[in-house]
Amino acid sequence: MPEPVRAARDLAARWLLPAAAWDRSEGLPREVAGDLARAGLLAPDVPAEYGGAGTGQQELGEVCATLGGVCGAVRGLVTVQGMVAAGLRRWGTAGQRGTWLPRLTSGELVAAFAATEQDAGSALAHVATAVEEDGDELVVSGRKRWVTCGQFADLVLVLGRAPGGPAAVLVETGRPGVSREAVTGQLGMRAARVAHLEFDAVRVPRDHLVAPVGLGLSHVAATVLDHGRHTVAWGCVGMAEAALHDAVTHAGTRFQGGTPLSAHQSVRAVLARSAVAATGARELCRRAARARTHEPGRAVHETVLAKYAAAEAAAAVTRDAVQILGSAGCAPDSRAGRLFRDAKVMEIIEGAQHVAETHIADRLFRDHGVPAPRPDGATA
Amino acid sequence: MPEPVRAARDLAARWLLPAAAWDRSEGLPREVAGDLARAGLLAPDVPAEYGGAGTGQQELGEVCATLGGVCGAVRGLVTVQGMVAAGLRRWGTAGQRGTWLPRLTSGELVAAFAATEQDAGSALAHVATAVEEDGDELVVSGRKRWVTCGQFADLVLVLGRAPGGPAAVLVETGRPGVSREAVTGQLGMRAARVAHLEFDAVRVPRDHLVAPVGLGLSHVAATVLDHGRHTVAWGCVGMAEAALHDAVTHAGTRFQGGTPLSAHQSVRAVLARSAVAATGARELCRRAARARTHEPGRAVHETVLAKYAAAEAAAAVTRDAVQILGSAGCAPDSRAGRLFRDAKVMEIIEGAQHVAETHIADRLFRDHGVPAPRPDGATA
Amino acid sequence: MPEPVRAARDLAARWLLPAAAWDRSEGLPREVAGDLARAGLLAPDVPAEYGGAGTGQQELGEVCATLGGVCGAVRGLVTVQGMVAAGLRRWGTAGQRGTWLPRLTSGELVAAFAATEQDAGSALAHVATAVEEDGDELVVSGRKRWVTCGQFADLVLVLGRAPGGPAAVLVETGRPGVSREAVTGQLGMRAARVAHLEFDAVRVPRDHLVAPVGLGLSHVAATVLDHGRHTVAWGCVGMAEAALHDAVTHAGTRFQGGTPLSAHQSVRAVLARSAVAATGARELCRRAARARTHEPGRAVHETVLAKYAAAEAAAAVTRDAVQILGSAGCAPDSRAGRLFRDAKVMEIIEGAQHVAETHIADRLFRDHGVPAPRPDGATA
Amino acid sequence: MPEPVRAARDLAARWLLPAAAWDRSEGLPREVAGDLARAGLLAPDVPAEYGGAGTGQQELGEVCATLGGVCGAVRGLVTVQGMVAAGLRRWGTAGQRGTWLPRLTSGELVAAFAATEQDAGSALAHVATAVEEDGDELVVSGRKRWVTCGQFADLVLVLGRAPGGPAAVLVETGRPGVSREAVTGQLGMRAARVAHLEFDAVRVPRDHLVAPVGLGLSHVAATVLDHGRHTVAWGCVGMAEAALHDAVTHAGTRFQGGTPLSAHQSVRAVLARSAVAATGARELCRRAARARTHEPGRAVHETVLAKYAAAEAAAAVTRDAVQILGSAGCAPDSRAGRLFRDAKVMEIIEGAQHVAETHIADRLFRDHGVPAPRPDGATA
Repeated sequence: MPEPVRAARDLAARWLLPAAAWDRSEGLPREVAGDLARAGLLAPDVPAEYGGAGTGQQELGEVCATLGGVCGAVRGLVTVQGMVAAGLRRWGTAGQRGTWLPRLTSGELVAAFAATEQDAGSALAHVATAVEEDGDELVVSGRKRWVTCGQFADLVLVLGRAPGGPAAVLVETGRPGVSREAVTGQLGMRAARVAHLEFDAVRVPRDHLVAPVGLGLSHVAATVLDHGRHTVAWGCVGMAEAALHDAVTHAGTRFQGGTPLSAHQSVRAVLARSAVAATGARELCRRAARARTHEPGRAVHETVLAKYAAAEAAAAVTRDAVQILGSAGCAPDSRAGRLFRDAKVMEIIEGAQHVAETHIADRLFRDHGVPAPRPDGATA
Repeated sequence: MPEPVRAARDLAARWLLPAAAWDRSEGLPREVAGDLARAGLLAPDVPAEYGGAGTGQQELGEVCATLGGVCGAVRGLVTVQGMVAAGLRRWGTAGQRGTWLPRLTSGELVAAFAATEQDAGSALAHVATAVEEDGDELVVSGRKRWVTCGQFADLVLVLGRAPGGPAAVLVETGRPGVSREAVTGQLGMRAARVAHLEFDAVRVPRDHLVAPVGLGLSHVAATVLDHGRHTVAWGCVGMAEAALHDAVTHAGTRFQGGTPLSAHQSVRAVLARSAVAATGARELCRRAARARTHEPGRAVHETVLAKYAAAEAAAAVTRDAVQILGSAGCAPDSRAGRLFRDAKVMEIIEGAQHVAETHIADRLFRDHGVPAPRPDGATA
Repeated sequence: MPEPVRAARDLAARWLLPAAAWDRSEGLPREVAGDLARAGLLAPDVPAEYGGAGTGQQELGEVCATLGGVCGAVRGLVTVQGMVAAGLRRWGTAGQRGTWLPRLTSGELVAAFAATEQDAGSALAHVATAVEEDGDELVVSGRKRWVTCGQFADLVLVLGRAPGGPAAVLVETGRPGVSREAVTGQLGMRAARVAHLEFDAVRVPRDHLVAPVGLGLSHVAATVLDHGRHTVAWGCVGMAEAALHDAVTHAGTRFQGGTPLSAHQSVRAVLARSAVAATGARELCRRAARARTHEPGRAVHETVLAKYAAAEAAAAVTRDAVQILGSAGCAPDSRAGRLFRDAKVMEIIEGAQHVAETHIADRLFRDHGVPAPRPDGATA
Repeated sequence: MPEPVRAARDLAARWLLPAAAWDRSEGLPREVAGDLARAGLLAPDVPAEYGGAGTGQQELGEVCATLGGVCGAVRGLVTVQGMVAAGLRRWGTAGQRGTWLPRLTSGELVAAFAATEQDAGSALAHVATAVEEDGDELVVSGRKRWVTCGQFADLVLVLGRAPGGPAAVLVETGRPGVSREAVTGQLGMRAARVAHLEFDAVRVPRDHLVAPVGLGLSHVAATVLDHGRHTVAWGCVGMAEAALHDAVTHAGTRFQGGTPLSAHQSVRAVLARSAVAATGARELCRRAARARTHEPGRAVHETVLAKYAAAEAAAAVTRDAVQILGSAGCAPDSRAGRLFRDAKVMEIIEGAQHVAETHIADRLFRDHGVPAPRPDGATA
């Protein structure tokens, strides 16, 4: 077993019980980031020169699956840290890479990505957050919503709009003008320290701009979101596998009137379908990891497809797991019940399922050489 | 519009906002029972001589649908109050009816039904709670789980096991030996004041026995659960319709990049399917209400079928509603998000879906004159 | 049981075996129309003054369900006869009604409706068949496809395009210039005598125009298709119920290794779901019949919804029935196998499912007072 | 591209049009076997010493997918030839291998596998065909049903019951006492030359027994069916991909009222879901091929899972393809319509889906160390 995967298993075993408490209290502890960093699991795909481990796509995926089966918020932290790192690796200057990447892999900084706004969810071309130049500084003003790790992130990659087009800007949360509003009580991912962020004329040095103005969406955010979808997809595989594990175990040990649930053929049928869904999602994630490694021209597409399938599998398998677990699946601190709530969120973040469907169809038409005008109603 | 339905609409409108807070704080206020009683909505199907309104099955259903779309816990209170009343009406002595029914319709007492145990969920033939005779008294000892309204109920109808067979016994919660453990943090129905109850050699007069020993399950509990399934089914219709309402409204008013969601054909397709599911569930509930009124021999079967279909519809429609609402559906206090959690519970309580499937198939075989040995693994 | 329903049961019983042969030979006999007429089942909803029985919508539906469970082609003949009759009743002149309706109810004439063209399937606004005035005559030129009963119909109601707009014209197939091409080997509805029709400058008297030019689509075809959807919906209910009947019977009588299939809980689960789907479809059809009788403003919508749900139910239930029947369901002359093929066609004719979804969503938005621009890609 | 896959593509391209005619006339020509043999596609996984090519599992799968997308009957012929060859390779004596395998790879003989009987479909432990010893001969008596290629097979591997237990025996169809009844008019796989076979005291030499008596089911048939499931699974992938291809192409080129179907988001959504299903099935087949190559202990399980998922994907994707194609999908000679019928058969042969569910669940319980008594109703 590759080292990062082994390390992830160790942490997963340690966090199995605390995860329920973090969800209840809606608070992933900041120390988790340090633990992850020490285990080499923060942006492990970053090259060694920046403190990473150069972990391959498949192994990175396994790490996310392993953590995802235990705690969506932990996997979420790994995802967003990796997203910002991915954007910097691909589009940052040498200086930016040298400055920021080591601090992300070491866990010195926890990062977040702020894109969604009130009127720009799937349609990121319509973000209204302003990025303006003022001498040697950039001034960022706007409101971002649903920022994972936003409650304690040190560094936020903000997608805004400069006069010249979309712009991606790094903003430290310690700067004057940054305020955060913790979001609590949401349906799922309750421990993920989600926040709405407000940027009130926040000034940052010009060198906080990642990639030239105009490329913030089509290049930087595209890379960031692609990384996010990949790690979310694998996280969903872990969620499905964990829920299936709990359902199988329960079916084998729960007796009703002297008969174990495992003797019920209708229970077996449900478990079998769950196994097929979870395994299929895993294999589609492996396919995406292969494309990401060997076939860059298909990487984005295969990743979208994998995330779509894996989120759906996570939703279906956790749903069926709760059903088989019955009252135990609805009980406080039930892992399956928590994953069931979290899985719904997975179908929405990093590109909702109906947006993914449009992307996948676009590629199908292209692969078949079929002309396909974009529907007017399409968003992203 | 019949009076009880109108009254339910008034209360539903009043409780639309508080319902989210009750869910958050996990506490339906006790006063709600009084409000319901004053509106004539506690066990309204009980005859006027006992303080009820003699409401028909269809109207009772509409009441539950109306309340269910706003707050599952309120509908749950109406359900359990009605369940206990139904058991007393059908199997109680004249004295029991005269003693208890007026106090249930007036809201003087809030009732609960305690059947499920750790090792007896769907398989109620295996309850272990002991009911023993001791002179003029009965002594009840055991632990019951997942009792809706158990935190504040005054009167509990307990399904136990006497030496002569299953026994249904009324126990006031004020008696020595009754203790309650509030359940919090469960997946759904958080405001429903669910509790685990312990009965430690609780003594009640003999006249608290409902129906002779031996009939507690096959007669009393069967009637009680049948009533429960009927009202739960209608509640699910209300949940589906409410979630659909929120999704339709959102789709018409949420713009992404200048286009309302309602212009997306894939969104329309989802809404259309939801409408079909919700409407189909409603019509199956109407069918059950007709059978309950005119065709007693089919009443239980049609009610099981309606509950099965309505719970599935509620689960599917709330799921799709959250998907269309996106982050708004995952947000704190989102009705669709709350109903999504509650709907999962609906697929489990009063007979889990796989138990219902076995029942429905039994009836199919019978209706077709086909021999069908009960599978050995079957539970209830 | 109402007389038309009883009569339909008699014929259905008689045609149970021949139906398989008709499907194999792809030829519903013309005599069937005579049998139906003698039983009072051709356009039975037409008033008595025109030879009908004034059958109500619910009873008409039951007739179609009864016939539909035995033979889709028979039900198809009843549907198209009824469609043309419905168009004439609603939009024909007194003279047209007096001339044609008695000949339709008596079975003297078999009618068909010709709307679909190569480039106008769901999008009937784009039919290219020309209707031109020439003195006292109309000249019809064009090619129509997929005309049910087209092989032997005597009278065809043709949807064409006159200079002034859409026009619906009656054309006797005996007139010069009418030619037919039998369609054989299609997926389903093989006995339905489907034909492609060519009209090569066919001349008919002016009084063959039904409703003024301009109203051919929005009024005549709309009425005709609405009638078609209603009868197809009920036919689908019959298909689902028949397939379920065969599956239940098989499960009870087929032993594998000493155990009947009915003892398998997973088989029971499938049968239960089928029962829910079939019953739900039936109740939605009843709902549509009620709206057609009492609430004209909702009639079209409820009928679209019922047809959508019933076609889906027929497809799902027949699919599962073949699965349970196994090789017996794939065997030659298997009713379930035939209905499985026919059901796929039901999801396409009289408005494909995705067109229905758009209609249903439109109504949802309207009912909720939500603005909803028609998507540009929408067709009909 | 590996040579066998290239060869399969060439043949697939040549047979694209004839396949529809073969289906219509219900007769795959015997010459196809010769063409396949010359292309090296009959039992290509057999080692070179027996005339095969030693093709790997993945490549064998690609061959089946390629052929399966064009003609289920051709793929079926490859499957049954390979099944018998697989049984001989694994369980035959050196003499049997030397005698029969070269004649199978060369196409000199077309083989078939006869297991199913009237009362033994999924439950092969209950076959009644008698195998008796009589001096140096074996005498085979019984009736077998649904034998693919049974109409023209030269050599049949028969699963029977000897006094000592299940026995697998090779029977040449030219021997006295073998008679065949062609099956026509079945739901799908119409060109596959399916026959019911009768063995009336057919005498064969003792050396026609494959593996000792007692191992005919648990060893020989198990190997044969495992091979069958693997190739069927890949064939299903080909069916799904072919149907998707036709749907995508149609959507891009079919205009309704000036708009291509490809502009409809709801059409895109369906296509996207089909792509996910087809791709997921392909990856599960690759997983099975990996297990078959590298992890024998999981080979059977992963193959069952792959076949289950691929058959379901083929059924779903062909269904949706016909829906998108509309009347073109129901038209005579439509590939999608044909594959839709064939796919239903795929869900039934080589282990029906509900049997697969039980197997998959068994393995799940084993993998999780959970005790799971076999349900009494279980068959295979």
